[in-house]
Amino acid sequence: MTVAQEPFVKKSSNGLPRLSAVELTAVDLVRKKGPLSRTAIAEYLDISRGSVTAIAGNLVDLNVLTEVGHGKSEGGRRPRLLDVNAELGYIAGVDIGATSVDLALADFQGSILERKAEPADVREEPDQVLDRIIDLIVEMLSSQGAEITDLVGLGIGVPGPVQFPAGLLIEPPLMPAWDSFPIKRFIRQRIPQINPVVDNDVNIMAIGEARVGGGKGLDNFFYIKIGTGIGCGVINNGHIYRGSDGTAGDVGHICVDYNGPICHCGNTGCLESMAAGPAIAQRGREAAESGESEIMAKRLELNRGELTSKDVGEAAAAGDQAANRIINESGRMIGGVLAGLVNFYNPRAIFIGGGVSNIGHQLLSTIRQATLRRATALSTSSLLIDYSKLGSDAGVHGAIWIAIENVFVSG
Amino acid sequence: MTVAQEPFVKKSSNGLPRLSAVELTAVDLVRKKGPLSRTAIAEYLDISRGSVTAIAGNLVDLNVLTEVGHGKSEGGRRPRLLDVNAELGYIAGVDIGATSVDLALADFQGSILERKAEPADVREEPDQVLDRIIDLIVEMLSSQGAEITDLVGLGIGVPGPVQFPAGLLIEPPLMPAWDSFPIKRFIRQRIPQINPVVDNDVNIMAIGEARVGGGKGLDNFFYIKIGTGIGCGVINNGHIYRGSDGTAGDVGHICVDYNGPICHCGNTGCLESMAAGPAIAQRGREAAESGESEIMAKRLELNRGELTSKDVGEAAAAGDQAANRIINESGRMIGGVLAGLVNFYNPRAIFIGGGVSNIGHQLLSTIRQATLRRATALSTSSLLIDYSKLGSDAGVHGAIWIAIENVFVSG
Repeated sequence: MTVAQEPFVKKSSNGLPRLSAVELTAVDLVRKKGPLSRTAIAEYLDISRGSVTAIAGNLVDLNVLTEVGHGKSEGGRRPRLLDVNAELGYIAGVDIGATSVDLALADFQGSILERKAEPADVREEPDQVLDRIIDLIVEMLSSQGAEITDLVGLGIGVPGPVQFPAGLLIEPPLMPAWDSFPIKRFIRQRIPQINPVVDNDVNIMAIGEARVGGGKGLDNFFYIKIGTGIGCGVINNGHIYRGSDGTAGDVGHICVDYNGPICHCGNTGCLESMAAGPAIAQRGREAAESGESEIMAKRLELNRGELTSKDVGEAAAAGDQAANRIINESGRMIGGVLAGLVNFYNPRAIFIGGGVSNIGHQLLSTIRQATLRRATALSTSSLLIDYSKLGSDAGVHGAIWIAIENVFVSG
Repeated sequence: MTVAQEPFVKKSSNGLPRLSAVELTAVDLVRKKGPLSRTAIAEYLDISRGSVTAIAGNLVDLNVLTEVGHGKSEGGRRPRLLDVNAELGYIAGVDIGATSVDLALADFQGSILERKAEPADVREEPDQVLDRIIDLIVEMLSSQGAEITDLVGLGIGVPGPVQFPAGLLIEPPLMPAWDSFPIKRFIRQRIPQINPVVDNDVNIMAIGEARVGGGKGLDNFFYIKIGTGIGCGVINNGHIYRGSDGTAGDVGHICVDYNGPICHCGNTGCLESMAAGPAIAQRGREAAESGESEIMAKRLELNRGELTSKDVGEAAAAGDQAANRIINESGRMIGGVLAGLVNFYNPRAIFIGGGVSNIGHQLLSTIRQATLRRATALSTSSLLIDYSKLGSDAGVHGAIWIAIENVFVSG
């Protein structure tokens, strides 16, 4: 993978050429709709044939776009098609979870070349975790016969509230040692040529779903992660919507019951404190201890006093009435909140992911029913509600794609 | 007001030149940030000095932009500033309410030249109402020494659900005679040169607030209209967000109480059935009839059995306890729903308008408290909640601006 070495090409530190605004727009278009003929690019961008010839010529000279065969003839010669050059550089995507880290190395078109995953403890000091991640990226590059200097982009998803421009976590409940630790800055000290992108895990998963999952081609949708908490990645016109302070999608603290239990945020009756994994597990334990559920009582004994939302899901699948009731209660609360957000935002789809989405189909069907029952008919006439198509891979795909989409510097 | 008559300029039916995509972007930029120097335009659009000279030159030749003096020197000569040509054509804005119609005639910069308002009954046949509106537009043009053929754009706000591309109402509860009546098509038959824009009243008011009200310069905010119903115009990146089917902002049917009264939509406990004008009036009447409120009982008698939300507001301002309680209940329900939407969308501001916003400051302060109490601290750290700065003028301003922003045809 080499980039054309011409004396007058302005380059970024990652070795990629600097592109003008219209060149960047053309590259984004080809990425989204490509391969495309020059005529198609001119039509999409509403620019002249002359302009597109100059722009495309330059992007081909810079090795950013490459010719990949011919399209259908529209009367004359078959037009040559342009696509993004997959070999322009390596991209790494990292999905940091509470107890594990998932990594992937991809080419410049986002196709995954290598995967790694290993347990990790985010309660450790961030520099140790990040150094280990960098080692793993070096290993993946090495398997491809490449070195760390060949990396052009890196995206990282982290499970907590992210100050996006600075690339650091703010008071993350699951990983207090990372509070205000400058992740982006730390990585630039280790891999100076790249400009890493750090975002919260839910936004990253939503981008993954948007680019290679069920959301491909959709302008507006929600990606809902149900796990220890409940969060939402909001896709707006094909991109992540962050809101005015970067906090958009914080649906876990929407109130479902003013008289509900106190949430760790200080309010009462928040959705996540009443319907997420720990609430499901807690209600399962209560049913086990009260004698309402024999299956869950056995589980509790077998697991030495531990019961997870997955156990409740399995009990429900085995026909346990209490487990079914518990899952339905969660699904109805989640669906009730989603109904309000559907009225407000009118998305085309809702994709559900996160650990709790593994507990089976019943949760999905209750969420779907509750959402459709409460939202207005007009706003749901073509609404799709489904589990994420990418499952636990949404994170690494999203991390790769957020890196790709931020890899070029303009100007 | 004349447009340059050159043989090779491609024109739209309204007499305005057809612009390329980049020319349109330049005009939008100048409208938003202007007056601007050529250098500033080049910097904002990230295009070369050469390109901006050609684009600006053409737009000045076409009379779309005009030179309006000189900016500050940055070392060399003071740069000439460009602004949109206010005299390029007349724009009309129409705000159709349930019982009245508000009209304005503006120049091409959106400055209002003439105003008209008169009672109207939207239960009448749409062609009669629309013919009267066209007569009033002709009168306003005539006062300016102009004719209907000088009109280049028209925006109309209507109180009901609009199918936006077609420009017609779908099952509007307040104006059943207008169901599927092709408003846009009808107007094009009367004023063939223009391409009218029809949108629902709340979206139109939000655009007004965004362009000339408190939302000027804000990327993301809500405009909430509280009247007979409750609706929301969602501003996203400076523009109206319509959602996947055009129904975004339909917050009036978000559930506040599953055990609440049945709403006309068929669901129970919808926000608007519990907190909008009619609910306030109904609870006021109950307090009057039960003897809880002497002031409201007197009102009821004076008004011959009628009591409005305005009466309740006036009773509250006079210190009536029951009226205060009723307004606080409404404010808390509205604020509770807004808190969830603030968590989700993280807007910079919420502006409140509509008839019920006239009942005084107490409603606003209760809505504000309830929103801030229930939304997360991060999402409200710089959130502004206030009454609309434009009051009842938001509609005509918005109608003018939606027309201006759709007046050019590209290509």
